Amino acid sequence: MKIDREHELQTLREVQTSSKTVFDGVLLHVKQDTVNLPNSGSGIREVIRHIGAVCVIPVTQDNQVIVERQYRYPLDQVITEIPAGKLDSREEDRLSAIQRELREETGYTADEWIPLGDFYSAPAYSDERISMYMARKLHAGDRHLDEDEFLDVMTVPLTELVEQVMTGEITDAKTQTAILKAARILGL
Amino acid sequence: MKIDREHELQTLREVQTSSKTVFDGVLLHVKQDTVNLPNSGSGIREVIRHIGAVCVIPVTQDNQVIVERQYRYPLDQVITEIPAGKLDSREEDRLSAIQRELREETGYTADEWIPLGDFYSAPAYSDERISMYMARKLHAGDRHLDEDEFLDVMTVPLTELVEQVMTGEITDAKTQTAILKAARILGL
Repeated sequence: MKIDREHELQTLREVQTSSKTVFDGVLLHVKQDTVNLPNSGSGIREVIRHIGAVCVIPVTQDNQVIVERQYRYPLDQVITEIPAGKLDSREEDRLSAIQRELREETGYTADEWIPLGDFYSAPAYSDERISMYMARKLHAGDRHLDEDEFLDVMTVPLTELVEQVMTGEITDAKTQTAILKAARILGL
Repeated sequence: MKIDREHELQTLREVQTSSKTVFDGVLLHVKQDTVNLPNSGSGIREVIRHIGAVCVIPVTQDNQVIVERQYRYPLDQVITEIPAGKLDSREEDRLSAIQRELREETGYTADEWIPLGDFYSAPAYSDERISMYMARKLHAGDRHLDEDEFLDVMTVPLTELVEQVMTGEITDAKTQTAILKAARILGL
């Protein structure tokens, strides 16, 4: 797969001609921009600016995974997810951020952190970038949830989670990818 | 993994107390709601209401995948993605929608459509649900892009795409999952 990156950026790039903040919330910052299209037409782009996030699949020595059952308001459902959280600032070190989130949400710390790459949740309209890790050599401890955070922690065999991804029972995007990546790395 | 769904919904659910539309755009519809939390505190939830989407990983008889190189304005990058598109309406049949998108964007039609499950892009703040398929028994044809749509189509071996997912070179969420699911199903 050979790609001429300079040429494709030249032929496909959209150039901003105006930008307006249409919503400036606590979590979400929404912009409505106008752009010049490659064919010299113009278009509107509605974009979420997101601070960024991190997630981790914590896998024990015997290939059990620490997962969370968490209520998600937009879906009105409790779903299975791996531990994850927003950055405190755009500049925050991503590895430190996920180490903090794992400890707070599950009590676990880990001696080994394996980067699984980055993940753009919805590149058509959001710049949210989630950095993904696998954690090994886990140590259990006490969890310290934020006072407005509610979730249950459970331990599930990785092979069972792979099944749930393949049948469609696990629906969270980052959780699907992290499980399949970890299973591939561990030969499961 | 045994889950008492009724009990966890009772203990984790958030109950809406007010809802306000803060942005009503062409693509994005943003609400800022207030909710009662499980501990009887209250919170703010900022939520994208999205019409829904579909995507497909089209795999030829010799395990080549039809992918797209598409400019994504929020990232200012051209990235590799599988064919995908928004629904025309919330009620639109999802299989018909992805058959249309595949034909328009790549020219391909397919005789076999295998559902790969649903995918919530960002369940913390969006209800976007992407239905994912694998298409087999492909037939090439002419593509018909929307006049404001610009993308390049290429054919890449599935094994090469798996490599790019594992090294982090492919960053699009749905594309990562679809490639890993297809590889697992095809034993690659």
